[in-house]
Amino acid sequence: MANKTAGPEIERLIKLLARLPGLGPRSARKAALTLIKRRGDLLEPLTEALAEARDKISVCPECGNLDSLSPCSICQDPSRPRTMIVVVEEVGDLWALERAGVIKGLYHVLGGHLSPLDGIGPENLNIGKLLERASAPDVREVVLALNATVEGQSTMHYVQDLLKPSGVTVSEIQKGVPIGGELDYLDEGTLAAAIKSRRQI
Amino acid sequence: MANKTAGPEIERLIKLLARLPGLGPRSARKAALTLIKRRGDLLEPLTEALAEARDKISVCPECGNLDSLSPCSICQDPSRPRTMIVVVEEVGDLWALERAGVIKGLYHVLGGHLSPLDGIGPENLNIGKLLERASAPDVREVVLALNATVEGQSTMHYVQDLLKPSGVTVSEIQKGVPIGGELDYLDEGTLAAAIKSRRQI
Repeated sequence: MANKTAGPEIERLIKLLARLPGLGPRSARKAALTLIKRRGDLLEPLTEALAEARDKISVCPECGNLDSLSPCSICQDPSRPRTMIVVVEEVGDLWALERAGVIKGLYHVLGGHLSPLDGIGPENLNIGKLLERASAPDVREVVLALNATVEGQSTMHYVQDLLKPSGVTVSEIQKGVPIGGELDYLDEGTLAAAIKSRRQI
Repeated sequence: MANKTAGPEIERLIKLLARLPGLGPRSARKAALTLIKRRGDLLEPLTEALAEARDKISVCPECGNLDSLSPCSICQDPSRPRTMIVVVEEVGDLWALERAGVIKGLYHVLGGHLSPLDGIGPENLNIGKLLERASAPDVREVVLALNATVEGQSTMHYVQDLLKPSGVTVSEIQKGVPIGGELDYLDEGTLAAAIKSRRQI
């Protein structure tokens, strides 16, 4: 990793790039070189884009999305029905659902999942605001779109219990064989879930 | 790829990050999220590091290295003998050799390799300056440390021919089995090279 010949500026840039997910020490060096070589069409625009993100992006006080508007453009969108709130763990999950274009409603980002071993309890998640939003008169259904992992599922059960008193309909997303998935390559848990929730055709 | 909900600032940041080598559309989204979430310890320092790279780093007029000094810190280093010039294709190769700490001498970065199909001829590489440097009275040896690829090797032969009139010793780095390499996993070309250049023990 030491790279004394590259000068302290490049060394620092490489170290910071290596902290991005998806980039290791080796690819961070490649990325730094590419940036420096492509000054006009990459380094300069990226510097500006980062400065703009730093100055403009904030957490939506309603749903926890990241946006330059506050409340975020989803919460402000008058065409979205206020009757459904889709609960996700992270902003990346919200983006994934938006790319799929399947949600006609609002979101709520918990900011992670319960993980006692990592010291993450209910007080570290954005749950209080969810309960407040779920009890608004317009809201009819809360969809728990949490990861199908142990942590995601235990978080789901926890949130489900808290939502019961509000009287709102609570649902979870379906588990099963992913589209394009071959049974031979799937784990037993997925197969068991797909069999268990089989439907008549 | 379309991500209308994330706001134009984040969309632009994701697009630019996706142009870095090693990051695809998916990992660029993850990287953008990580940057925005970790404002103080990642987004802000990276913005500054990029601005500093933009403002301070330039191409060394002697050897083609990238550095904040000009000529670069290697060319300026009085402890390095001026008798040997190691020719590489890219700055990344120079860094790799410096990490290995095996070169007691100077470098020369060609800026690529000959590739007629991509329209890259001798006039696109930093060859003229190499010939000028190689004919300096101090220089005794030019080591061609080019990639062991078809393009690297044809570039090597081309540069070798041009260096002949200068009377300087021209050498190439050895080809063979990489350290830790298992014969069973190596291609025939490497094995042939390793056999051909075998040495008595």
